[in-house]
Amino acid sequence: METLQSPVIGALLDRLGSVAVLSGPDIPERNTNDWGPHGPVRPLAVVRPSEPAGVAAAMQICHQHGIAVVPQGGLTGLCGGARPIAGAIALSLERLVGIEEIDPAASSMTVLAGTPLEVVQRAAEAAGFFMPLDLGARGSCAIGGNLSTNAGGNRVIRYGMARDMVLGIEVVLPDGTLVTSLNKLLKNNAGYDLKHLFIGSEGTLGIITRAVLRLHPKPASTMVAMCALSDYAGVLALLAAARRELGPLLSAFEVMWPDYWSAATGEVPNVRNPFAGDTTPYGAYVLVEALGTDPAVDMPRFEAWLERRLEVGDVPNAVVAQSMAEVAQLWGVRDACSEFVSVFGPHIPFDVGLPTGRMDEFAERCAAGLRARLPGCRSLYYGHIGDGNLHLVAWVPGAPSQPEHEIEQVVYGLVREFGGSVSAEHGIGTLKKPWLGHARSPEEIALMRTLKHALDPTGILNPGKVV
Amino acid sequence: METLQSPVIGALLDRLGSVAVLSGPDIPERNTNDWGPHGPVRPLAVVRPSEPAGVAAAMQICHQHGIAVVPQGGLTGLCGGARPIAGAIALSLERLVGIEEIDPAASSMTVLAGTPLEVVQRAAEAAGFFMPLDLGARGSCAIGGNLSTNAGGNRVIRYGMARDMVLGIEVVLPDGTLVTSLNKLLKNNAGYDLKHLFIGSEGTLGIITRAVLRLHPKPASTMVAMCALSDYAGVLALLAAARRELGPLLSAFEVMWPDYWSAATGEVPNVRNPFAGDTTPYGAYVLVEALGTDPAVDMPRFEAWLERRLEVGDVPNAVVAQSMAEVAQLWGVRDACSEFVSVFGPHIPFDVGLPTGRMDEFAERCAAGLRARLPGCRSLYYGHIGDGNLHLVAWVPGAPSQPEHEIEQVVYGLVREFGGSVSAEHGIGTLKKPWLGHARSPEEIALMRTLKHALDPTGILNPGKVV
Repeated sequence: METLQSPVIGALLDRLGSVAVLSGPDIPERNTNDWGPHGPVRPLAVVRPSEPAGVAAAMQICHQHGIAVVPQGGLTGLCGGARPIAGAIALSLERLVGIEEIDPAASSMTVLAGTPLEVVQRAAEAAGFFMPLDLGARGSCAIGGNLSTNAGGNRVIRYGMARDMVLGIEVVLPDGTLVTSLNKLLKNNAGYDLKHLFIGSEGTLGIITRAVLRLHPKPASTMVAMCALSDYAGVLALLAAARRELGPLLSAFEVMWPDYWSAATGEVPNVRNPFAGDTTPYGAYVLVEALGTDPAVDMPRFEAWLERRLEVGDVPNAVVAQSMAEVAQLWGVRDACSEFVSVFGPHIPFDVGLPTGRMDEFAERCAAGLRARLPGCRSLYYGHIGDGNLHLVAWVPGAPSQPEHEIEQVVYGLVREFGGSVSAEHGIGTLKKPWLGHARSPEEIALMRTLKHALDPTGILNPGKVV
Repeated sequence: METLQSPVIGALLDRLGSVAVLSGPDIPERNTNDWGPHGPVRPLAVVRPSEPAGVAAAMQICHQHGIAVVPQGGLTGLCGGARPIAGAIALSLERLVGIEEIDPAASSMTVLAGTPLEVVQRAAEAAGFFMPLDLGARGSCAIGGNLSTNAGGNRVIRYGMARDMVLGIEVVLPDGTLVTSLNKLLKNNAGYDLKHLFIGSEGTLGIITRAVLRLHPKPASTMVAMCALSDYAGVLALLAAARRELGPLLSAFEVMWPDYWSAATGEVPNVRNPFAGDTTPYGAYVLVEALGTDPAVDMPRFEAWLERRLEVGDVPNAVVAQSMAEVAQLWGVRDACSEFVSVFGPHIPFDVGLPTGRMDEFAERCAAGLRARLPGCRSLYYGHIGDGNLHLVAWVPGAPSQPEHEIEQVVYGLVREFGGSVSAEHGIGTLKKPWLGHARSPEEIALMRTLKHALDPTGILNPGKVV
């Protein structure tokens, strides 16, 4: 193990002080891993600057010493993007927290990168605005990590990905240059748009230190329905009708396939089946959510819309939530997936992108392919189909260890055949790096490498991740 | 003048044939300039491939011969981005036209880059969708040019810029590599997002050959009101109320300052003043537009919203369009600016970005600064304030030639002081290149140059533009 005598640690201590530089036995356990499946790694040191200039100084020192740096936010990533590397510095943004400004006229918020998402959401709410980005890890994940992984979530169909909520960023380049590009304008065509290069690049091109976020008006009404449908053609018809007639109020369109539905409502405790008395063998279930501006007008209109769908026969059965408690109950079926580990044990989760029109065909072929390759294999399908995002989990019940690679071969082989993406929202990190070529062409990957080399010619920033 | 004997022209003719390669007297007049203010330039040749592989081949040949290339779309740009360079090839996408696919389930359209915007809009309409990008040059401009300049327009507050309507692109790199990245998924985090690097970079990093566009549901109702307000504080209050209560239906919020208003309604022929009988000296005028899904519900709701604004006193006077003819009449005041050249003669147009909260202060100081520097100087202010975009035109009536540089010094000096942008939507090209440093920091510009050098190390693609 390296000690305080390491010249890079000495230089970091000189510049940032002992509160910001932790090495040897002082390295906190939490900084040794993210939420990915691989084991913890002790970095050379954990460096925690409390201001953007400190991040730039730390990066500059590491650059001078040729020491690799792994940026860390809330450490809730699932693909190893923030997992330390032995001999490298873990540069944590955990002390770079705070809301710097809310500008009501511009509907924007300027925030330091280490601020937890939930703090951002609450500050927006308190100022009369809405920050639509939301995910299960909201209390732990940092906004800088949300941007560097381009986080998704359930409301992408209306509000877009994390990328779409950013007006400007500040970033530290691999050589320690601080590039402040805190644009607050929706429209700015003065030269290249630099922010999109760093958003979604998982900390391999630069370290985001601050961001200007675009805030949205706070919705005043929430309408949720659970629909039972005969088949996937009905799902596509309902999606088209929702887009056309709910228009921009449509905020979620979550599809659950029958195997998922029966697992969620039949095997996960405390999940209530809203169609409990109905024994019809439905082909799909859809949770439709709309967010409006006036409950008195929006709810009757939402119910009338659904009524028409029932009348024309698109939707054989449906339930509309009559209270926020019922909203939570209906979402409970969709959120049951977070209990799958405790109910079914270890399983392989996927987060693939697929053409919306062909998701059902994929699900059917994938389930059959898995069963053929691995007798007894179970797989459950659900997702944000309007965004082209399908989630699935697969496992062999009772297997002493899960055949991860075989399952991945079947799933990603089909993803490639369908022209899909190996990661719709979780990112690549190290976990999916071997499969990147299943979703991106050699020319695309070569261009990614050109960009990586241009910004980080010595390869010291988050090496070995993504490309 | 170069002749057919030029080796690069010979190689292009061999590969692409004589229909695609025009040189010497065959060079069409239209390919010698865009709509910018500088004079025409004859290129070495005009090359017009009819398929993406032809664009790649042409670029590869020019790369081998070290001959510069200027990409050309519809040639309607205002900043010289597509203006030829003597000795360089003009690579026109005018024959690369056609809609390749509309995918209703994905709400997407795949289109070749030379297709005129209006053709794209009509194809979307015919398929039951809406392509919200719209600008005056719609009949002539090409979708590839719209993307490479990241075009804006009037509905950015709701639908975003051209950038926000793109799911995937295909691009030819400066070395002739064809990178096909025709993603159709709203969510795709498999590696770096490459499209945003090329969108808005004005053909300096690559040539867009195809794109997958995101389509929107077709709105079923249009509500437009013109509001007269006492002052800019009232404008900001109205904007906040529109965002909060019209929510995602709000599609345009166009502010006109009093000088603009009296010029448009008093000096431009055939523009009707909707407040003709009212002699109150208002401080600002606002056109508010909302697009809905159901006229029977949306119009009464829009009128009730405006009624409340009148009751609380935010809006002293307002007119709501009762027909599409009246919608056109109200928009006519805002669109009167397109007649300014014929009414006022030569003038200097600007397209700046500014913090929404400080636009009135800017307008007042800019008008005073111009009058102080150039006695008699007139300036008119109007813009999409919700997007942070202010347009202004300035001129000295009766001057033998307009003092362009002095006017720019005053305007861009203030833009820098206010932390704004020298171009909100038109781009940089060559026209605004001297002013880029007024809006972007040395670190930002250095990073742009790093990217340019990485992708185009020999500087043959649209050299001298943007950075």
